[in-house]
Amino acid sequence: MSYEIRGLNEECGVFGIWGHPDAARVTYFGLHSLQHRGQEGAGIVVNQDGHFQSHRGLGLLADVFANPNDLKRLNGNRAIGHVRYATSGHGNLENVQPFIFQFYDCQVALAHNGNLVNAEALRFQIEHEGGIFHSNSDTELLMHLIRKSSAHSFEAKLKDALNQVKGGFAYLLMTDKGLYASLDPHAFRPLVIGQMRNGAYVVASETCALDVVGASFIRDVEPGELIRIDDDGISIMTYTTQTNYAICAMEYIYFARPDSTIKGVNVHRARKRMGAKLADEAPCQADMVIGVPNSSLSAASGYAEASGIPYEMGLVKNQYIGRTFIQPTQELREEGVRMKLSAVRGVVEGKIVILVDDSIVRGTTCRRIVRLLKEAGASEVHVRIAAPPLKYPCFYGIDIQTKKELIASNHSIQDIQKIIGADSLCFLSETGLIEAIDLQLGGPYQGLCMSYFNGDYPTNLYDYQKTLTTHSLT
Amino acid sequence: MSYEIRGLNEECGVFGIWGHPDAARVTYFGLHSLQHRGQEGAGIVVNQDGHFQSHRGLGLLADVFANPNDLKRLNGNRAIGHVRYATSGHGNLENVQPFIFQFYDCQVALAHNGNLVNAEALRFQIEHEGGIFHSNSDTELLMHLIRKSSAHSFEAKLKDALNQVKGGFAYLLMTDKGLYASLDPHAFRPLVIGQMRNGAYVVASETCALDVVGASFIRDVEPGELIRIDDDGISIMTYTTQTNYAICAMEYIYFARPDSTIKGVNVHRARKRMGAKLADEAPCQADMVIGVPNSSLSAASGYAEASGIPYEMGLVKNQYIGRTFIQPTQELREEGVRMKLSAVRGVVEGKIVILVDDSIVRGTTCRRIVRLLKEAGASEVHVRIAAPPLKYPCFYGIDIQTKKELIASNHSIQDIQKIIGADSLCFLSETGLIEAIDLQLGGPYQGLCMSYFNGDYPTNLYDYQKTLTTHSLT
Amino acid sequence: MSYEIRGLNEECGVFGIWGHPDAARVTYFGLHSLQHRGQEGAGIVVNQDGHFQSHRGLGLLADVFANPNDLKRLNGNRAIGHVRYATSGHGNLENVQPFIFQFYDCQVALAHNGNLVNAEALRFQIEHEGGIFHSNSDTELLMHLIRKSSAHSFEAKLKDALNQVKGGFAYLLMTDKGLYASLDPHAFRPLVIGQMRNGAYVVASETCALDVVGASFIRDVEPGELIRIDDDGISIMTYTTQTNYAICAMEYIYFARPDSTIKGVNVHRARKRMGAKLADEAPCQADMVIGVPNSSLSAASGYAEASGIPYEMGLVKNQYIGRTFIQPTQELREEGVRMKLSAVRGVVEGKIVILVDDSIVRGTTCRRIVRLLKEAGASEVHVRIAAPPLKYPCFYGIDIQTKKELIASNHSIQDIQKIIGADSLCFLSETGLIEAIDLQLGGPYQGLCMSYFNGDYPTNLYDYQKTLTTHSLT
Amino acid sequence: MSYEIRGLNEECGVFGIWGHPDAARVTYFGLHSLQHRGQEGAGIVVNQDGHFQSHRGLGLLADVFANPNDLKRLNGNRAIGHVRYATSGHGNLENVQPFIFQFYDCQVALAHNGNLVNAEALRFQIEHEGGIFHSNSDTELLMHLIRKSSAHSFEAKLKDALNQVKGGFAYLLMTDKGLYASLDPHAFRPLVIGQMRNGAYVVASETCALDVVGASFIRDVEPGELIRIDDDGISIMTYTTQTNYAICAMEYIYFARPDSTIKGVNVHRARKRMGAKLADEAPCQADMVIGVPNSSLSAASGYAEASGIPYEMGLVKNQYIGRTFIQPTQELREEGVRMKLSAVRGVVEGKIVILVDDSIVRGTTCRRIVRLLKEAGASEVHVRIAAPPLKYPCFYGIDIQTKKELIASNHSIQDIQKIIGADSLCFLSETGLIEAIDLQLGGPYQGLCMSYFNGDYPTNLYDYQKTLTTHSLT
Repeated sequence: MSYEIRGLNEECGVFGIWGHPDAARVTYFGLHSLQHRGQEGAGIVVNQDGHFQSHRGLGLLADVFANPNDLKRLNGNRAIGHVRYATSGHGNLENVQPFIFQFYDCQVALAHNGNLVNAEALRFQIEHEGGIFHSNSDTELLMHLIRKSSAHSFEAKLKDALNQVKGGFAYLLMTDKGLYASLDPHAFRPLVIGQMRNGAYVVASETCALDVVGASFIRDVEPGELIRIDDDGISIMTYTTQTNYAICAMEYIYFARPDSTIKGVNVHRARKRMGAKLADEAPCQADMVIGVPNSSLSAASGYAEASGIPYEMGLVKNQYIGRTFIQPTQELREEGVRMKLSAVRGVVEGKIVILVDDSIVRGTTCRRIVRLLKEAGASEVHVRIAAPPLKYPCFYGIDIQTKKELIASNHSIQDIQKIIGADSLCFLSETGLIEAIDLQLGGPYQGLCMSYFNGDYPTNLYDYQKTLTTHSLT
Repeated sequence: MSYEIRGLNEECGVFGIWGHPDAARVTYFGLHSLQHRGQEGAGIVVNQDGHFQSHRGLGLLADVFANPNDLKRLNGNRAIGHVRYATSGHGNLENVQPFIFQFYDCQVALAHNGNLVNAEALRFQIEHEGGIFHSNSDTELLMHLIRKSSAHSFEAKLKDALNQVKGGFAYLLMTDKGLYASLDPHAFRPLVIGQMRNGAYVVASETCALDVVGASFIRDVEPGELIRIDDDGISIMTYTTQTNYAICAMEYIYFARPDSTIKGVNVHRARKRMGAKLADEAPCQADMVIGVPNSSLSAASGYAEASGIPYEMGLVKNQYIGRTFIQPTQELREEGVRMKLSAVRGVVEGKIVILVDDSIVRGTTCRRIVRLLKEAGASEVHVRIAAPPLKYPCFYGIDIQTKKELIASNHSIQDIQKIIGADSLCFLSETGLIEAIDLQLGGPYQGLCMSYFNGDYPTNLYDYQKTLTTHSLT
Repeated sequence: MSYEIRGLNEECGVFGIWGHPDAARVTYFGLHSLQHRGQEGAGIVVNQDGHFQSHRGLGLLADVFANPNDLKRLNGNRAIGHVRYATSGHGNLENVQPFIFQFYDCQVALAHNGNLVNAEALRFQIEHEGGIFHSNSDTELLMHLIRKSSAHSFEAKLKDALNQVKGGFAYLLMTDKGLYASLDPHAFRPLVIGQMRNGAYVVASETCALDVVGASFIRDVEPGELIRIDDDGISIMTYTTQTNYAICAMEYIYFARPDSTIKGVNVHRARKRMGAKLADEAPCQADMVIGVPNSSLSAASGYAEASGIPYEMGLVKNQYIGRTFIQPTQELREEGVRMKLSAVRGVVEGKIVILVDDSIVRGTTCRRIVRLLKEAGASEVHVRIAAPPLKYPCFYGIDIQTKKELIASNHSIQDIQKIIGADSLCFLSETGLIEAIDLQLGGPYQGLCMSYFNGDYPTNLYDYQKTLTTHSLT
Repeated sequence: MSYEIRGLNEECGVFGIWGHPDAARVTYFGLHSLQHRGQEGAGIVVNQDGHFQSHRGLGLLADVFANPNDLKRLNGNRAIGHVRYATSGHGNLENVQPFIFQFYDCQVALAHNGNLVNAEALRFQIEHEGGIFHSNSDTELLMHLIRKSSAHSFEAKLKDALNQVKGGFAYLLMTDKGLYASLDPHAFRPLVIGQMRNGAYVVASETCALDVVGASFIRDVEPGELIRIDDDGISIMTYTTQTNYAICAMEYIYFARPDSTIKGVNVHRARKRMGAKLADEAPCQADMVIGVPNSSLSAASGYAEASGIPYEMGLVKNQYIGRTFIQPTQELREEGVRMKLSAVRGVVEGKIVILVDDSIVRGTTCRRIVRLLKEAGASEVHVRIAAPPLKYPCFYGIDIQTKKELIASNHSIQDIQKIIGADSLCFLSETGLIEAIDLQLGGPYQGLCMSYFNGDYPTNLYDYQKTLTTHSLT
């Protein structure tokens, strides 16, 4: 047996709203600000007096809704939406969310951000009992568990189901009667509640979505909570009390948008502090600091400010890169034709450069950038990474490469420095990272999940346990 | 009666190559890096053994070449290409360049960046004599003048024609026998020559295009020059010796890409110096400096470095904005739904902010950004513009608004401050700008065209003379 | 409450092939010839060494596969495909077939042509036990029944399931090991087996698909049969012996392609005989016979030949009509602007016309055509319908309107004549139809299902029983 | 010297209207009914109070106007439109009509159906004098001649120009003040005037366009006429009196729509008479008559009626064939996979078949169809062509192959019979054709151009004279 579950349900963004006359359009703008969380597919389900309508498709939100009529026909004052991470691209529309389930006694729309660690075992059990799955994603699982629960109300069945799924998850469900939001017991993924000026409640993966739709921030969804929003307002319930924070550190490091605030900590500021800490921990004599656009610009400016070395624009990212872009042929690449990123000769020529990046995964991108800078005349390139080395995979919803591919899992820092061609290489320490983010939620990591750096996973790994141990992870 | 010429042939980007087996593809990548100079349309003409083929279309380059076969079928080792500025959008494909002209005795492809000031008069004369124009652009004019010239060779006819057109222009022409590049006698627009690793010469509007295709910089095209590139190499001729530099200051301020170098001055560096000068001329006590993304980030970081005030990410630009994007309805806008630009509440709330921008045209954008920051909680917003006030229109190829619309043409700085809702407002001085760019080419403005700021136009205005005087400019 | 099943799984076309190196492409051409059976959606699933890949979409086959790469990437030597009927257009991609089901122990692709009469009851039961359906179609039912069966092999489970579904069905299933084709016990829908020149077996809804792919006809699938095609060849099994023919008469009358042969009877020939019978039963003095293009041309030429009255082209159908076509506004329609069908004034002006059509459903189309002919100058229009009046709905897979909408269910022939504005109106008799088709399979109707004309349904109606009785059919 | 003019301006359709509030939409429907005259490109120019707007594109009309907004924005009560023939496909948008010309003193939109025989000489002269052409088509010539005329009014200049162009032409011109229609002195191409119910006049290539837009037929445009339609009504002028009819026989034979009437003769009826004549001239003992769909169906039914042999549907044309259709690979073709046309085995197997077609050009299509029928089991195939053999090219606007490619120009009928594999082959005689069309306009051919059959060209051939004589025609 072996259907592939892994790698298909990583990082996503969700948005929901209840009680706004133009619910689909607000959801569209909310999702748009979450586009960085997923570019493979997008969808919106709207609910008007119990009549569900949806539009979903592969690609960017703007592509999926390229025909404005697709949005116009989604009438209703309640909606949920989803953007999906760009994985290795089967182009399976079946996997694009939100899913709609129509039963003889109710309808449910469902959207999910995260990854379950016991999906394979649960799915095997359900199929064995005659259940049928239609997607490769593990999102359907929750619906099967709800329908199989012997509890007596939808809410009770839902709580029952939430206690059976393990791992990282932020769920949005919409029924005829209400909008439900729920977070796993460790709060791996961010999920926040806001309120529009007209009083409508919204739920979103990040606060940037609240800012974009003009909603004020109400509160973070807490681990183990089940929130219900309906015509009577908002109700906060818990499905478990066995919770403790393990917020994904990678959200702060590179995944979330810099203008978002997660559990009280602004992401851009956290990144600047990582850069500043890094300047303290790993100083360097140089002419300038350069960040890799766009994700490392905050950390780079933090490094520059703390070190007093000027911050310069030595790398330029082409802003017109789209998904369908024509690529240089191999011949042209060898002649030096470059697309996405250009080094600015006029800035770096003859200079000693500190290059700040947020992470090294396989090392190939970093090596390419170092070479780009040297070809443009930089005399020395000192690489500073504003996070500790990535050594372990993530099982809770971020598509970090497996151990075999993680360069820091298989090589010393000295080796990596040689591989990427840098004149020096330093990483931020784990303590430095924790202090820079400064969550202050207690525990050894102050509420962060640090497993990618130290292998200390906050949950049982179920399906993945064996894989991890036997090092056969692919 | 009078057909409208104005406003249709503003800013563009050109690229040409002679002697590369994959000429069209190299041109594609060169144009891609010049996309910021024009998003309305794009085209490439390729020349294989005298057989011309072309593909042109409306929209971004990637849209025009969305079907990869459109690029593949452009076989040939010589090509020129063009990107066209987004004017008010008639969507007239007729105006998309390069133009191809097929005569019984030769073929010519033609691309143009700039604006002529005597186009109307020349066109009237030619039509009066039975000539027929097919586009609204003034690019065709050169071709008519060439064909009507009584000189004996193509080159002689071309020089003859170049002496009749007045204003700002950078022309690329391709015939069976050679690639010609020519610049107006004041060098309003940038135009550079580079060389690919295989020896092929390229001509481009900006050096960023050379970097992207891996070409090394050879030299700037000088005012009054006519360059011929053919199988024998490169020849430098002049069609006039009555030249003096008046390089468009707006290229340095906001139009060119920061990684480009114009006449020896790197644009990003010039912008940083404008910001630093501004910090000297107009200091301010504040918690942070914020730039308007993306064009003002260099100036803002220059201001921050010079003033010692931290540079923060208080505004975020949505990177997934495309041309076909669905816009918020008026109702949603009033509820605070924002698209392109978001203010980061977590950064600016309760803070005194210095907002650095590169220019104020009509004032509406600046007013919106100030309001955005205040709604996000900024306690004070001090606006600093890294250029002098724009008071006069440009007639040489940049689509700056007319005097009626230019806010600085009709209001005092104090008035503008009130209109945009800023707590203070300062502009960089003309002297400050000239020193920051630091061209050192002599004359009162060291080789810059400063007419937008002071009305001192370096040429006779011909068609526009009356318009300017009578203030009836629309 | 009750979800709507009806009207979503009507008429379709299926095609399958096992053992051809270019299986997807052959399936494409096969489906293309079946496009008349369904224009709402299309899909192909291909199977290469147990690896299933699919492409599905809304619209015509050529639209779904507009990008040739979508077909190219479907590598494999086994495939099944489906075209789906254009119902009132929810645009639900979920309902586009073939469906793929991936289990821990096997994979199944499934395509269906027909309509079940006990789908609602079965679905209620399955959902009640925790099962989840993803589409509105009743096709999924079979898969649930297979997975819930306690039999021990896939084939035994499949037979078990086939005995539980009631109504009209032609199923194609593909697993890693074989291709299965099965027909309901009455053979409502056509299904044939053929063989490619390379030896590969194909299964298709109509023989026209065999002709198009160059396959020779092997045999019809018989009622109650389950056919297995695998690497060892073809095996014919039965899941029930309680069978008797009730082939849908509407297939002969208007649905099937004229070049197809169903159970030995060529459709075009049957239609010519219907026209000839009609000429005998309902003669008329006239100048010409005209058929409604395209479906009634065979019957009209049969009428003309039998009557000796010349057959003329008095109506022309515009061959460039596509789905996205711009329609005339109401104002233009009133001014006489016509799209799909034009009457030819030069042919019909001042003439007595016999208009032959294959059926009258609601009467609106017929009325429009009669008016068209009269506006073009026809002095008399005598309508002759080459089938008996449609009075009862079909529950076995053709989307005939409900009783409320069927004009012949609520009006006398005399009334209908007035409503459509004809000078006379006659229908073919039931006996005439049976003799014209000439199936010779015994029973009162010689093997035809005649229920649309006389209400004599060959099966228990289950879900629909009550509806039919209470006349509340909508 | 040698720009290629030939083959680029063949057959087209034109439509114009003056004085209807929805002029562009009416034009759209008119052009739609003329789509058979040109599928390469389409365009509409609308004129509102002297403001011209246009939309043009490559492909079918429905593709060009796929976005309904493209039609909606064409506001105005006057319009002309054009559909362009599918030639060998450079995909040059420059050649898609109508053309718009904007002068300082007027605007003109121009559409053209036909081919000039002195275009090359005229173009050479104009270019020599400094004129510039933008398209390869010869349509622009007229505009140059108008602008160069020394006459004093637009109308006088136009008449002057019409006297200089030679060959076949039907021109539509629209200015601020009026709509002009003009036909060459031999009336090679059809052109008719009609009137909408609201009084607006329309001009169209064929009467079928009048029928589709609900316009009544007013009169044919006569050779040598120049018609002006403006707010005062219609004025009929002549630019020459040296006229005599030479209506293109191919319009009757295969080009025009069967429901059109040209100079009083209905095309479908003419084709039936050709078939009947052919039955008289070339009888044959057979089981059935089959026509090649769709163009030969009228002739085939005429043959069947006259001979008393039943007309059967032995060939079926797939109605869903579009331009972008995926084609069978060579391998599949060899296995018998067929697309566009299928032979119906159930009809033709074991039968003697008379196959009626309208023409044989290169013989390849006919050979393929004969083989198709034989592979489907036809025992004998007797080919009957309802026109005389095509031996000479057309220079007046129909893209008939050159002499080298015309099979009848290089082979005897007996040879052709062998090449196409027919059991017998006969053509209609020239006399038979003239009698069947029955124009009764005097002269040796009763007003027809018969040059394709007998080389008797009604005009001096100018540019083509040498080519024809030297047999070097390519």
